[in-house]
Amino acid sequence: MTRFEVWAPAAARVELDLGDQLLRMNQDTNAGGWWWAEADDAALDDTTLDDTAIDYTFRIDGGPPRPDPRSRRQPHGVHGPSRVDRPDAFPWQDESWRGRPLRGSVIYELHIGTFTPEGTFDAAANRLDHLTELGIDFVELMPVAAFNGEHGWGYDGVDLWAVHEPYGGPDGLRRFVDACHARGLGVLLDVVYNHLGPSGNYLAEFGPYFTDTHVTPWGPAVNLDGPGSDEVRAFLVQNALYWLRDNHLDGLRLDAVHALADTRALHLLEELSAAVDELASATGRRLHLIAETDRNDPRTVTPRQLGGKGVHAQWCDDVHHALHSALTGERQGYYCDFGSTSALAKVLTSAFFHNGTYSAFRGRRHGRPVDTAALDADRFIVSLQTHDQVGNRADGDRIGAALSEGLMRVGAALLLTAPFTPQLFMGEEWGAGTPWQFFSDHPEPELAAAIRNGRRAEFGRHGWPPESVPDPQDPKTFARSILDWTELTREPHQDLLAWYRSLIALRRERPELSDPRFASIDVYFDEEERWILVGRSGLHVAANLSGEARKVRLESDATSSSILLASDPRIESADDHVRLPPESVAVISG
Amino acid sequence: MTRFEVWAPAAARVELDLGDQLLRMNQDTNAGGWWWAEADDAALDDTTLDDTAIDYTFRIDGGPPRPDPRSRRQPHGVHGPSRVDRPDAFPWQDESWRGRPLRGSVIYELHIGTFTPEGTFDAAANRLDHLTELGIDFVELMPVAAFNGEHGWGYDGVDLWAVHEPYGGPDGLRRFVDACHARGLGVLLDVVYNHLGPSGNYLAEFGPYFTDTHVTPWGPAVNLDGPGSDEVRAFLVQNALYWLRDNHLDGLRLDAVHALADTRALHLLEELSAAVDELASATGRRLHLIAETDRNDPRTVTPRQLGGKGVHAQWCDDVHHALHSALTGERQGYYCDFGSTSALAKVLTSAFFHNGTYSAFRGRRHGRPVDTAALDADRFIVSLQTHDQVGNRADGDRIGAALSEGLMRVGAALLLTAPFTPQLFMGEEWGAGTPWQFFSDHPEPELAAAIRNGRRAEFGRHGWPPESVPDPQDPKTFARSILDWTELTREPHQDLLAWYRSLIALRRERPELSDPRFASIDVYFDEEERWILVGRSGLHVAANLSGEARKVRLESDATSSSILLASDPRIESADDHVRLPPESVAVISG
Repeated sequence: MTRFEVWAPAAARVELDLGDQLLRMNQDTNAGGWWWAEADDAALDDTTLDDTAIDYTFRIDGGPPRPDPRSRRQPHGVHGPSRVDRPDAFPWQDESWRGRPLRGSVIYELHIGTFTPEGTFDAAANRLDHLTELGIDFVELMPVAAFNGEHGWGYDGVDLWAVHEPYGGPDGLRRFVDACHARGLGVLLDVVYNHLGPSGNYLAEFGPYFTDTHVTPWGPAVNLDGPGSDEVRAFLVQNALYWLRDNHLDGLRLDAVHALADTRALHLLEELSAAVDELASATGRRLHLIAETDRNDPRTVTPRQLGGKGVHAQWCDDVHHALHSALTGERQGYYCDFGSTSALAKVLTSAFFHNGTYSAFRGRRHGRPVDTAALDADRFIVSLQTHDQVGNRADGDRIGAALSEGLMRVGAALLLTAPFTPQLFMGEEWGAGTPWQFFSDHPEPELAAAIRNGRRAEFGRHGWPPESVPDPQDPKTFARSILDWTELTREPHQDLLAWYRSLIALRRERPELSDPRFASIDVYFDEEERWILVGRSGLHVAANLSGEARKVRLESDATSSSILLASDPRIESADDHVRLPPESVAVISG
Repeated sequence: MTRFEVWAPAAARVELDLGDQLLRMNQDTNAGGWWWAEADDAALDDTTLDDTAIDYTFRIDGGPPRPDPRSRRQPHGVHGPSRVDRPDAFPWQDESWRGRPLRGSVIYELHIGTFTPEGTFDAAANRLDHLTELGIDFVELMPVAAFNGEHGWGYDGVDLWAVHEPYGGPDGLRRFVDACHARGLGVLLDVVYNHLGPSGNYLAEFGPYFTDTHVTPWGPAVNLDGPGSDEVRAFLVQNALYWLRDNHLDGLRLDAVHALADTRALHLLEELSAAVDELASATGRRLHLIAETDRNDPRTVTPRQLGGKGVHAQWCDDVHHALHSALTGERQGYYCDFGSTSALAKVLTSAFFHNGTYSAFRGRRHGRPVDTAALDADRFIVSLQTHDQVGNRADGDRIGAALSEGLMRVGAALLLTAPFTPQLFMGEEWGAGTPWQFFSDHPEPELAAAIRNGRRAEFGRHGWPPESVPDPQDPKTFARSILDWTELTREPHQDLLAWYRSLIALRRERPELSDPRFASIDVYFDEEERWILVGRSGLHVAANLSGEARKVRLESDATSSSILLASDPRIESADDHVRLPPESVAVISG
């Protein structure tokens, strides 16, 4: 027997549509608003497309057929029927895998659709040796929930429990996860709980999944605190557990949690982190929740028993902004408060630049300080490139487009020797020449036009002529964004890749570099000369961001020093100082 | 010289209009968006209505004259000019007053406009002996900020720094506060920071005081987290300090803080409580912040260093609802989850009934538990009547209209022997026969009609015929709500007053009764027999809510017991039990 269940609290009648039979569903007398039906598997086989597949939809009060809100598979796209999927039938090979800690790790963010020319999980799995040789510990997949169209970033997902079919569907994801685990790699998945995409979102026909008592950039908010919200929260919490428990993911990256409008005394994030910790405890696995948040509120990653939300880590964009603007000199938009060496020093020692300070970009004070004695720095995920920081530029150009080889090495060294948890964006490690642009593939002409015009209008406000902004719907925009792995056979890509490998290897060899205690980092800098010296418990990272040679005194009691890693062969160290040619960096012992 | 200042960040020109002169104001080079002008006092005298009064308005970019957003006086109403007011010129007599603690206190909520027939501060001050004889520690004034019209509850205030003129204006308030302090009474003031009234609100012409990025029941939210919100928050924080510092108030009751839409990492309430604590520390005064909140979140009153917002106390409506519905049997609206004796027992021992439990009224789970080992019960202000719980009924009928004399005494006894901070609503102590209805006095016909029709529509949805809902704009509705002090010369009002006095006196004599530790209370009850026994460290409060006589065993090791206070002469206590006639209560030692 196969059991079908759906929550439809306002429905007077719900039917299970199996294509050639319509089964009246029963109201669950124990759970308000739930309906169920059971169908004999033998009978079902007649109705299906192949021997094992069972396709179905629900009809509410005689309405049109709709996919299951908790559909595990949408083989015919987001508007079509759902298909029964059994994760426990997958031939998992990772029985002994129990996960790995975030602390000390390096994360690698990738987008299945553009990581390889094929754009599938299986093709991505064929590239895992590249990642293990690089020294990566975790892969972080951009969202894979089913969305309309073939190509997209994935933040338009509408079937939060299904896996985008063009990537390989749920079994493709499982093969990828299994392959990662076989190599000792953890897998994190980006999930979007703050909104659904514009096409194929039928949730509101089933129940009060949305509310207009809060406003979000994407329209009505997901209903986390209004009538009926207990089931909406359960939908999200159980979705998280589904990925972790049934699909063996090692953690989730929660998209834009600041847009989770929740006024309850128990915030969804706290409820979610408790549920995930309980699963970890019950299974002996290491499971991770990582929040994307722009609130600069340390309580996001403060343990629950200390009054925090208990999320394990969060993205810290301030570190990105400080690095990016110090390296590139850019000051537009949200970079306006950054750019100085002192801003870089501040984020390296306290994570948040805006910790109650005035943000010119926001026109108000922003954030609160991290208690650096109580929280460790590995709770902050930091980057030099992310899908957002690259793709949300008009051109989708990577930081390398604006930097010398030397400064790219400086950026990588500052990122990978910091006490935070560093994260790379696919291709960063070889200075990919391919951009990563904003692309979409909405089949609906109105949506396509809205996306195209919205993008142009947004950048038009900042002075970009419309024709200079790539058309997200143009297939060439997508095609341009696919990594070009042939670059790896060429200099200077090989050199930069070697530099990243060396840095990650050194980070692993020298635990001083990944020491997550804020007390383990000391920073000295000269704003005018634009050098920065990062002390890491006996090691030093000396970086010269300027176009002039610099002599930097080592702040150390050591009587001798030696260079562990240098971006430039002209770098020289003496007992108490280091000489750095323009745009260079070295890691020094002593 | 008199200095005038105003924040108008988008203005190109601001003028100070003194009636017969227009002074161009100067931009403050140190503070963004601020404008200032100084006027010679001698010159000003010519322009004024009497020898000392200086009336003025501001004109933005040549626009119409507008009152000062921080006007201290609006002698001609909310649309007229502002008047210079100097609180330090008031002949304060309370130099030695340093305030009093909330712990162990009883609060008395009153509305200046209906507390006396005259409806003024001075008339209210003439009734203070009644309050001191009752045993009150704090008076809590309903809002006095200037609003349009003569009469109203006060939640439509638009000049948050001015005092409603018909009450006696700012000096009237000061005379009242001074008179209270002379008698040892503290004074708390209800302030409304979550919205402004519909008439006379010119703030948006001056700056970004409001935002549409959040929704509130009253329209656009006060801008606490958008661009320019630093000054809006300062406007509110400084307003609080103005009342406490310059007008000698002892504390503030913050209206509906759940409607303060603030996504910042540092919530306004935390910023406000820190500022108030700093003032208290700097002046050696005891200052109190009390929040009205419906979120059932203990972090509202958790100290800041423990991750809370640091507000000192909050209203706890769950205690009211449990008491009200247990006494009256009402189950409509938000009483639907209450009514049982077990609900009453739960709130007495844990403050929140909804501490993560399902709220049928809200259609979702609500609240989180109070850590009763870490928080004391005096942080929860509890009531049997409040302006809202009386006035927001269709008829504005008080609880006494539905109760026997006996049950009124039971309610008072349970309220005044609990570990919380009890609060009475004016007239409750003598079982006032006057209702307290919803009244307003909007001069604008459209607003008057909107209020009238809104009220009727609201109660119409609950089955009240339109003509049965008093018209808020009818002067008779206001007149009916004025306390009738002649009732005090008559039984049974005198008897109930004596009961309240005895209870408050006993609460003061026996510190067990006001012991704020949750551990100091034990509750036993019988749901079927409808009695409840409240143990208070060797004392017992035995209450029979039923219409039958009950025998209640005393849960005690004491070998004898004696009745300290009995609502009914037929109550008898023996060594290990007490016999209670119907609807009676006793406080027993042993």
